[in-house]
Amino acid sequence: MSAKKGVELLKSVFDYASKSKGFSGCLKNFTVTSGGEGNCVAEFTVSEEHLNQGGGLHGGFTATIVDNVTTYALMTKDKHPGVTVDLHVSYMKAARLGDVVVVDAKTIRAGKTLAYLECELRHKKDGSVIAKGTQTKYIDL
Amino acid sequence: MSAKKGVELLKSVFDYASKSKGFSGCLKNFTVTSGGEGNCVAEFTVSEEHLNQGGGLHGGFTATIVDNVTTYALMTKDKHPGVTVDLHVSYMKAARLGDVVVVDAKTIRAGKTLAYLECELRHKKDGSVIAKGTQTKYIDL
Amino acid sequence: MSAKKGVELLKSVFDYASKSKGFSGCLKNFTVTSGGEGNCVAEFTVSEEHLNQGGGLHGGFTATIVDNVTTYALMTKDKHPGVTVDLHVSYMKAARLGDVVVVDAKTIRAGKTLAYLECELRHKKDGSVIAKGTQTKYIDL
Amino acid sequence: MSAKKGVELLKSVFDYASKSKGFSGCLKNFTVTSGGEGNCVAEFTVSEEHLNQGGGLHGGFTATIVDNVTTYALMTKDKHPGVTVDLHVSYMKAARLGDVVVVDAKTIRAGKTLAYLECELRHKKDGSVIAKGTQTKYIDL
Repeated sequence: MSAKKGVELLKSVFDYASKSKGFSGCLKNFTVTSGGEGNCVAEFTVSEEHLNQGGGLHGGFTATIVDNVTTYALMTKDKHPGVTVDLHVSYMKAARLGDVVVVDAKTIRAGKTLAYLECELRHKKDGSVIAKGTQTKYIDL
Repeated sequence: MSAKKGVELLKSVFDYASKSKGFSGCLKNFTVTSGGEGNCVAEFTVSEEHLNQGGGLHGGFTATIVDNVTTYALMTKDKHPGVTVDLHVSYMKAARLGDVVVVDAKTIRAGKTLAYLECELRHKKDGSVIAKGTQTKYIDL
Repeated sequence: MSAKKGVELLKSVFDYASKSKGFSGCLKNFTVTSGGEGNCVAEFTVSEEHLNQGGGLHGGFTATIVDNVTTYALMTKDKHPGVTVDLHVSYMKAARLGDVVVVDAKTIRAGKTLAYLECELRHKKDGSVIAKGTQTKYIDL
Repeated sequence: MSAKKGVELLKSVFDYASKSKGFSGCLKNFTVTSGGEGNCVAEFTVSEEHLNQGGGLHGGFTATIVDNVTTYALMTKDKHPGVTVDLHVSYMKAARLGDVVVVDAKTIRAGKTLAYLECELRHKKDGSVIAKGTQTKYIDL
């Protein structure tokens, strides 16, 4: 899939997710900035609905981003989105209300049956890493 | 904290979360069934708002449950809820609309600076495991 | 496989590993205490060759135990030992020279293509947890 | 620490490990190629003692590499090597007897109390990824 077609696909996928009555509906107001060939870069502004009770970006929302955005990255490789086998997230730095967060998801390896994906969340202002996650998916469905 | 006081605390914590304008607001309609001494058992019915686009329980919602419910379990040990260092979830079986899911969270070790927690999601109907997760928290705040 | 046959199989597998010129040769002097039906319980005494440079049980040796012993547990279910997809270990407590360590490995789910396994290392003297690990294996080979 | 001093430190650390009577003694015959400032790149040739019983690089040896080499990378930041909290490895591709493997370890974040590290093992011949791992360490000792 060309980069241009990749970005178009990613925009539709985020648009579809944001209208979902399911849990992916929490991914509203993401802007796709680049993608294709197994990658997806998007950004969003931390809003009240993303916060934990300490006023920082909620770890469960971060995990949801890792789960969904790596899956979207994989889809630009014309792969079946598959099912999640395993998700791992390390949390390194807080993000607060109003911060702009860059989400950078990559396909590390997409074999016949398994895909290995990773995702980094960074502060847009200084590139510092907020969280890094990996996902393994079973795609031979 | 006695088991009775533990359950009372857990009920207030879930109630508070369900009213949150932040991300923990997604944990609505959970019923605490037992808890205290570092443990928390609760259940909920899979609803449309918990689903992924394939009609199964969303992996990001499962991760959010692991993150929050293990933290609540830890709070019954009179520990500071801390910040998440690391979250790991293995997904084993689907859950569908209407399924009742039992969430069983445990404190494995709560030291001076770090807490190690784990959580299992099971089908109420047959006890089969849907997902298992672990969380490491930094609690020396 | 019956418990008795399970234990016999596990004893031969440990014996075979301990004579390996490969990396599994590091699993010498393990005693199988029970097993079968997807489980394996064994113990060993921490020796000089298992230590890190701080004099504690080496995290890499612990990870090797998780990798191998969960695989042996799985083999008592008449499953192909498969290949490792993912290994996760949380380290909770030190073990020192001369400590007796109980290794308790379990098959959580063995489906057609993937197996989910877990393993706990505990001090024999007081049952306190040294480390907990999970392994995902691809078994449809 | 300058890159030159970093490489010198790393060479002594590998040399010291290779002579260890403890478990780090399994890291023999590694060549440091670059490092310093929280990073370490080294390589080794897969030998019989590194293999699993299927003739591939043993997952436990790979985990041991992740554990040790990320710790060495961290030491070039003048940080205490600390204790391992959590280790996660994803296995993507086999390596066989005679293959040359590049180990590339990085410090993602070293705060006051916790360090987040990662490590990639690649085939030298084509750069394809064999495994990726992360380690969290507690360094405030």
